[in-house]
Amino acid sequence: MIWPTENKPRAAIQLNHEGQLRHFLSIEGLKRELLIEILDTAESFIEVGSRSIRKVPLLRGKTVANLFFEASTRTRSTFELAAKRLSADVLNININTSATTKGESLSDMLRNLEAMAVDMFVVRHVQSGSPHFIATAVTPGVSVINAGDGRHEHPTQAMLDMLTIRQHKGGFENLTVAIVGDILHSRVARSEIHALKALGAAEIRVIAPDTLLPVDVESMGVKVFSTLDEGLRDADVVVTLRLQKERMEGALLPSEHEFYRLYGLSAERMRSAKPDAIVMHPGPMNRGVEIDSAVADGAQSVILQQVTNGIAVRMAVMSMAMSGQINALAARGGQ
Amino acid sequence: MIWPTENKPRAAIQLNHEGQLRHFLSIEGLKRELLIEILDTAESFIEVGSRSIRKVPLLRGKTVANLFFEASTRTRSTFELAAKRLSADVLNININTSATTKGESLSDMLRNLEAMAVDMFVVRHVQSGSPHFIATAVTPGVSVINAGDGRHEHPTQAMLDMLTIRQHKGGFENLTVAIVGDILHSRVARSEIHALKALGAAEIRVIAPDTLLPVDVESMGVKVFSTLDEGLRDADVVVTLRLQKERMEGALLPSEHEFYRLYGLSAERMRSAKPDAIVMHPGPMNRGVEIDSAVADGAQSVILQQVTNGIAVRMAVMSMAMSGQINALAARGGQ
Amino acid sequence: MIWPTENKPRAAIQLNHEGQLRHFLSIEGLKRELLIEILDTAESFIEVGSRSIRKVPLLRGKTVANLFFEASTRTRSTFELAAKRLSADVLNININTSATTKGESLSDMLRNLEAMAVDMFVVRHVQSGSPHFIATAVTPGVSVINAGDGRHEHPTQAMLDMLTIRQHKGGFENLTVAIVGDILHSRVARSEIHALKALGAAEIRVIAPDTLLPVDVESMGVKVFSTLDEGLRDADVVVTLRLQKERMEGALLPSEHEFYRLYGLSAERMRSAKPDAIVMHPGPMNRGVEIDSAVADGAQSVILQQVTNGIAVRMAVMSMAMSGQINALAARGGQ
Repeated sequence: MIWPTENKPRAAIQLNHEGQLRHFLSIEGLKRELLIEILDTAESFIEVGSRSIRKVPLLRGKTVANLFFEASTRTRSTFELAAKRLSADVLNININTSATTKGESLSDMLRNLEAMAVDMFVVRHVQSGSPHFIATAVTPGVSVINAGDGRHEHPTQAMLDMLTIRQHKGGFENLTVAIVGDILHSRVARSEIHALKALGAAEIRVIAPDTLLPVDVESMGVKVFSTLDEGLRDADVVVTLRLQKERMEGALLPSEHEFYRLYGLSAERMRSAKPDAIVMHPGPMNRGVEIDSAVADGAQSVILQQVTNGIAVRMAVMSMAMSGQINALAARGGQ
Repeated sequence: MIWPTENKPRAAIQLNHEGQLRHFLSIEGLKRELLIEILDTAESFIEVGSRSIRKVPLLRGKTVANLFFEASTRTRSTFELAAKRLSADVLNININTSATTKGESLSDMLRNLEAMAVDMFVVRHVQSGSPHFIATAVTPGVSVINAGDGRHEHPTQAMLDMLTIRQHKGGFENLTVAIVGDILHSRVARSEIHALKALGAAEIRVIAPDTLLPVDVESMGVKVFSTLDEGLRDADVVVTLRLQKERMEGALLPSEHEFYRLYGLSAERMRSAKPDAIVMHPGPMNRGVEIDSAVADGAQSVILQQVTNGIAVRMAVMSMAMSGQINALAARGGQ
Repeated sequence: MIWPTENKPRAAIQLNHEGQLRHFLSIEGLKRELLIEILDTAESFIEVGSRSIRKVPLLRGKTVANLFFEASTRTRSTFELAAKRLSADVLNININTSATTKGESLSDMLRNLEAMAVDMFVVRHVQSGSPHFIATAVTPGVSVINAGDGRHEHPTQAMLDMLTIRQHKGGFENLTVAIVGDILHSRVARSEIHALKALGAAEIRVIAPDTLLPVDVESMGVKVFSTLDEGLRDADVVVTLRLQKERMEGALLPSEHEFYRLYGLSAERMRSAKPDAIVMHPGPMNRGVEIDSAVADGAQSVILQQVTNGIAVRMAVMSMAMSGQINALAARGGQ
């Protein structure tokens, strides 16, 4: 399935008439102020996760449908938990056993779900742009959240990473952030680069072999390094990417072992970075491939804090988008 | 598995001593007054679906088990949503991964679910009569709702169609309703014919090639047409059926293309019907086979309204059946 | 995957500093008083299951993750229902579609789930000792409940059996309990033997062919019988085990038919037991293999009562363990 090419700016559809979030499809095109608002809102939900009763009634009586066309325990679970902690009802749609096996089009399936009064779709799809396409198709008042689309974006992952960075570094202005690994196939890297630029990071670096870099990567405003030692020098934040073995088409890499030898993050190599540098990974990790256990489980790792922040960021984005839709409906004279 | 042949009237088991619904297995045998009560109750739940908080506490603390022996996103999702909006707890039983793989009989599985204090079973099964069999087997106080059984009935689908018709036409007495397509394999058609007869529709027509008609179809009180142009003439309501490709055994049809040429509902053919005729389809649609997109998405289509009504009808049937069981238990001296 | 050998007593990790339950991994090593407390607590939850609104708020705002590495409708459903009746949010993790397919280790998966603030893991795994391993790995405050691990234990099954026995016999001191069938592969039998010993049953018998007995079975304090007639003589309680066909490696049995001829529980054979003996089975049953329908559905059968008790016992264990963790955290100065 090929999604329609979009020429208009992707950001436009994400916002309502007052500039409030109503879908969350991509970081690209969103302004600094909105990203800061997401981080501040997420920070307030961190507290909810540490309560004895981890629930707030913000989405009570709302229905959230998880449409996962790609299997994912981690991301689906965090969105499900975030929705339940906002008191929403959650509908998990297993696409393999769904009506698509009866030849129904995605578009018909969506219209049906909307007719059931689903308030929000959380969409993961192998095809870039599919959440955006769905957002153009849903009826007014319904939100779409991108939970990862092809090689395009994974915006909630980027925001949970930004939250983690801000918790440790206070801000973004003076930071050097190095992203290591399979940049070419990584929707996480794309979303992070957009977020770091919008938030004003001093320097964004990517470290990868040529075969794992997009051709236009420098046009994104990053510095390219081909060796770890150079790329990590004096970095404040190191983001290691999962080696997306299942996404590789053909022989872009000699072997996992060779990748580890050149780009695997070991304790020794981390010495090039600043002593107080933090290490992040979007998970799931290939230990001994892109990251050593000594680093993953070491004092500089904030990898599990990223997961905790993931719930709070998803609660923030879901409640903000729902609220933005309600305001948009009210402005149109809806309920 | 062959289900026991039933000689006693199917309606009897569906009602309690006061004639209230306690299971919902088939339209056949139910009286007009009860069908009207279902429609009226559903109408009151339409309002709940349009609220900001889409929940009522009618089934709070009750457990509804979805027993789907046939995959279905749409129907399972609407029953799940209906149950959740009634505040029930929902247990989805995936039959493929269930104890039936360990050789447990259906009967033992049911007894176990009952012993867990499940209050209602929503059953879809490839075998006609299985929900009825289950209703004869459950303990007092437990409701069974038929979510589609083989070629037999799909009673909630028929009632949501009736609700949609009533919303557009005000009633049934003067209506000509034409049902087009694969009548032979369609549990939807069977349930609709029973419902339309009970509700007093003036004329019920079926339009299909001979090979897709049951042998005894005229005994059901319908007029048979073999061409669309004749069958649609002055119809008030046109129901297009899904071409049940997966149910066909052998070569009942030359090809999909041939079917479309003779029985596909196009805008041009719709001109035979009354100008204010409505078009319905139970979904999922095969666009370009039994229905053209111009009709499916056109001004006369009420297909998505059917889906919305589906939630309300299922809420109605579930709450009425539960209430009928509670009254039956009370009459027996139970709690 | 081989789990680490444990030399320290398994009971220690299950209890907090005050001797309260905080995990529930095995019956072995638990004291009589604690087992009685579980039975008494479960008895109080029996009443909840018979209410019109079957919910109590004990785990409101808590998240329970069902980690089932082995398919199971019955046990998963009872844990899910127990958690929902305690008002917890439930996350079902389907291990086949999970991140383990992306090469993530179990340990990383668990750490991630914990970082999502999951409060309790209900674990079923084909490998003996895995829930214990998980309990050693989780962060303070998180409970692990064993829902069956390999051939090791199935402690909630044993406790629901004990509850059923106590309801019929008043206590354990003077009872002769006979366990029939595939002792070798049965985690149920192991847990029951430990429970019966701790609760002071007068005599515990196992009845099985040599090939289905563990080599060290007599060291567990049971009497071994190789024929039903001798083994059942004057028994108060008869526990028939499921013939675990799928667990057998090689030819331990000539045939199902031969097994039935020698060890199948028929009405005639039950005459050796006391006239008021009760018959139990953990389910799912192989009717006509280990048990006749005349016995399974007969007056002495308490098999469905076992299922009902299963919900109550699981509610008891879950609420006690959560409470024990909260007390443990408080003692450490946590919240």
